[in-house]
Amino acid sequence: MHTLLLIGIGAGDPRQITLQAVDALKRANVIFVLEKGAGKDELVQLRKRILERHATAGSYRLVLMDDPERDDQAADYVAGVQSWHEQRAQLYARTLRSALHPGDVGAFLLWGDPTLYDSTLRILDRVRQHGVALTLEVIPGISSVQALAASHKIPLNRIGEPLTVLPGRRLAEQARIDNVVVMLDGQCAFAALDDPELMIYWGAYLGTEDEVLIAGRLREVKGQILQVRERERLRKGWIMDTYLLRREP
Amino acid sequence: MHTLLLIGIGAGDPRQITLQAVDALKRANVIFVLEKGAGKDELVQLRKRILERHATAGSYRLVLMDDPERDDQAADYVAGVQSWHEQRAQLYARTLRSALHPGDVGAFLLWGDPTLYDSTLRILDRVRQHGVALTLEVIPGISSVQALAASHKIPLNRIGEPLTVLPGRRLAEQARIDNVVVMLDGQCAFAALDDPELMIYWGAYLGTEDEVLIAGRLREVKGQILQVRERERLRKGWIMDTYLLRREP
Repeated sequence: MHTLLLIGIGAGDPRQITLQAVDALKRANVIFVLEKGAGKDELVQLRKRILERHATAGSYRLVLMDDPERDDQAADYVAGVQSWHEQRAQLYARTLRSALHPGDVGAFLLWGDPTLYDSTLRILDRVRQHGVALTLEVIPGISSVQALAASHKIPLNRIGEPLTVLPGRRLAEQARIDNVVVMLDGQCAFAALDDPELMIYWGAYLGTEDEVLIAGRLREVKGQILQVRERERLRKGWIMDTYLLRREP
Repeated sequence: MHTLLLIGIGAGDPRQITLQAVDALKRANVIFVLEKGAGKDELVQLRKRILERHATAGSYRLVLMDDPERDDQAADYVAGVQSWHEQRAQLYARTLRSALHPGDVGAFLLWGDPTLYDSTLRILDRVRQHGVALTLEVIPGISSVQALAASHKIPLNRIGEPLTVLPGRRLAEQARIDNVVVMLDGQCAFAALDDPELMIYWGAYLGTEDEVLIAGRLREVKGQILQVRERERLRKGWIMDTYLLRREP
């Protein structure tokens, strides 16, 4: 039975890590880091800097894993993701078996919060089904949703209203948008909306020195967001962004 | 112009505070603490302990404010809340004017995250309208939504699905519940639901030594939750709880 810590390390600002996460980094002696696709090297470097600052040098082994690429073109979205999860579960099971020895404490460093649009918990369920016995601890982290609202200095919800958080591909099917945070939107789903009552609060590379913020009435600023987003994506080679849409008649 | 820091201090576990929040506590020399109603004394004590641990003794003044009680019976919910906000804005404006001297840095210690179901940002907008010039900084904190999911070790959303966060009084009007987190539900709105496909993940006093967790199929565990919730509420004199409802056919 291995102990595995899922540590939320925040959305990008290295100071947005909790004391509980810092304690967990010090407890772990095998640290797993996964990254894939564009931005991979920079994101791995960011995590190494967090480790250098908070973990005890010489007291842990770093295990880098190459995350399998997901087939974005799969006809059935959920089935496509599940098949990708199974690939990752097999990789994780192999890696955990070979890297963790009796008495070791493993840790995954996860951007944002381990429970919000992160698949690690689900994949580790599959890893257990592959016969790897695990005791999990989940350490919450500041998500990009919170970093976005803090940078814009705005509440996420209006008085007594629901807040919805969703991936970009689910935006078009929303019957009514009052307070919606959109994550994982590589396709800029906001650009297809033309409701004059909507405000947008957009941010990229939140909490880092590259942070960019744009806010305003959607109709008036969406062109600017598309332009800035594309410019920054080309400049850095990758982009991570998120936004809040709010109805303000 | 005064600098005012809105510091999210997490949902209850004193280790679930970020390094950024700890830095902010050290920067502030006037710290405002508000509390009202049942549990007030205990919650003020919890914040004092956070200050004792992280702020520099002798380097700050503590200003306790008695929060006005809200009229829960107001016929129009939003108008009732707005009138309560105006009362609080007048109190905050008076208190900030008398407590903050030139060069002071003020701070509000806020449970959870300052942008999620917290009215301080909205009230400070009104305070500015009363002529108090403020520069705000918002420091995100771990919300009870995240503490709940971390304690239950579950993702907040299923693959690619939206997550909705709402106050208890808005639960009944949800056409369909897939992943819904309910906060501020003194009336136990979950008890009125009888959908056999719903699971519930409930927690009270999250992150504290009094934490209680119950999870299971809603139909099977709702009686137990009601019983435990009432027992704990009577024992401590107050309760703070939250829960996730998820469809799992």
